[in-house]
Amino acid sequence: MKNIGFYNGTIAPIENLTMPVLDRAVYFGDGVYDALYMRGKKPFALNDHLDRFYSGLEKLEIPFQIPRDDLAGIFFEMIERLDETSDGYTLYWQASRGTAFRNHLFPSVEQSKPNLFIMITPRVIMPVDKTLKLITYPDIRYELCDIKTLNLLPSVLASQRASEKGCDEVAFHRNGTVTECAHNNISILKDGVYRTHPLTNHILPGTTRKHLILHCGELGIPVDETAFTVEEMFAADEIIVTSVGTLCNPVIEIDGKPVGGKAPELLKKLQTAYWERMLRETSK
Amino acid sequence: MKNIGFYNGTIAPIENLTMPVLDRAVYFGDGVYDALYMRGKKPFALNDHLDRFYSGLEKLEIPFQIPRDDLAGIFFEMIERLDETSDGYTLYWQASRGTAFRNHLFPSVEQSKPNLFIMITPRVIMPVDKTLKLITYPDIRYELCDIKTLNLLPSVLASQRASEKGCDEVAFHRNGTVTECAHNNISILKDGVYRTHPLTNHILPGTTRKHLILHCGELGIPVDETAFTVEEMFAADEIIVTSVGTLCNPVIEIDGKPVGGKAPELLKKLQTAYWERMLRETSK
Repeated sequence: MKNIGFYNGTIAPIENLTMPVLDRAVYFGDGVYDALYMRGKKPFALNDHLDRFYSGLEKLEIPFQIPRDDLAGIFFEMIERLDETSDGYTLYWQASRGTAFRNHLFPSVEQSKPNLFIMITPRVIMPVDKTLKLITYPDIRYELCDIKTLNLLPSVLASQRASEKGCDEVAFHRNGTVTECAHNNISILKDGVYRTHPLTNHILPGTTRKHLILHCGELGIPVDETAFTVEEMFAADEIIVTSVGTLCNPVIEIDGKPVGGKAPELLKKLQTAYWERMLRETSK
Repeated sequence: MKNIGFYNGTIAPIENLTMPVLDRAVYFGDGVYDALYMRGKKPFALNDHLDRFYSGLEKLEIPFQIPRDDLAGIFFEMIERLDETSDGYTLYWQASRGTAFRNHLFPSVEQSKPNLFIMITPRVIMPVDKTLKLITYPDIRYELCDIKTLNLLPSVLASQRASEKGCDEVAFHRNGTVTECAHNNISILKDGVYRTHPLTNHILPGTTRKHLILHCGELGIPVDETAFTVEEMFAADEIIVTSVGTLCNPVIEIDGKPVGGKAPELLKKLQTAYWERMLRETSK
């Protein structure tokens, strides 16, 4: 199989896979997901992603029944079935609160257990030398941005707006403070300091963000977890976008204006360190 | 059939109905829904609900292909198949942006057309003399509350919190200003005036809210569409909760404190007018 889907034990090509219409993901978005990059058949940073997934389940009080090691076991069983035809894949999985007639109240675990949906699809990781263009966009999202929930409509709309302007992503801002992108974290380099929004309910605790902070430590780059404004972003030496599929890519244009490009060596150090981590960890 | 489900032309009991896992409702909540009350087999306020549904589709730029009259035709075909075993039903329907591999960007209409999912389930409307208890709750939702989207997790969590405290609903507030409930609109009567939040992106344009304003006009009750604070709500003569299944029910307790009950005659007038409308319109 080129791609592979899983829903509560049923495995099939994703295009053929179905789920009950009464899965609470369908009408409430009542669930948590996570996703990681696989180089070939090697998942990158699996433990970090599992940590975040189980943490999200706990925050939303979803009584997911599958222990962590068993979940990882399911992943590896699925990975085994893949034809080795792609250099990379995305491993995506989500758990919803269960299957029940539509009612805002949580179903009891006796009534309905959480559902697990997994998909593995081919993915090309963003090349290290790819530069990005952004638009600024008001952060119209809710107050639960620290959880990877299935309520993603504002990110969908914002991404579409960016694409229509020939851009790759948005820089969300709340009253002038930059939070993150629609599906990436964002950080800046300024006067040799790596600066990024603190871990609040307004941003996702990105695994790549976390790793980059570790690399800053190793490279002697000071880290400042203080939010920055839109103006500070425009004035930054480099603006860096990070996510599972975008390890550490610089922004060269925002709202049509050139930005960044003033600390290419520092950027390169970070990029190199992170790519080496990814290559090392997916070579084991 | 006691209940009936529909997905893109397939009709089945809802429990047996499935949809593709790649429906964008499943992983993004990328869709719009609406729901109405049916007394027996008679939909109440169908046109108002269709208005809102098509308006929501337009706001989210979902290129839904089924014209309004054809959609209503599908509803009536489904209604015909119901056994007349319930005094009332909820007719719920949703359209998602389509079926596609996960990508924030809109799929083209050539790639994927929007999906239609409908379900009709038995429902008991809230009795006119039922009184409600609420909790106050911070309105942690996004800035798209004027659209009935499938991103409903904050309302799910808030409803659950209310239920755990033995209450029926929450009064959401943004920085002390009451917006609405988790799945109802809220209004107050004070000194003979009907007051409710204006139609902004912070509340749903409720059909029942709209009808009550019309009845206020007929009954000579002044209407003030100015938001009120939590304090003003506690000091109101009556607090009224309204939705498809809750025509006009008073609140008697919020956060454990007694409230309302100071304008029972005015409340009764509104209730009577609205129940008469519902009974009249579902008798045709």
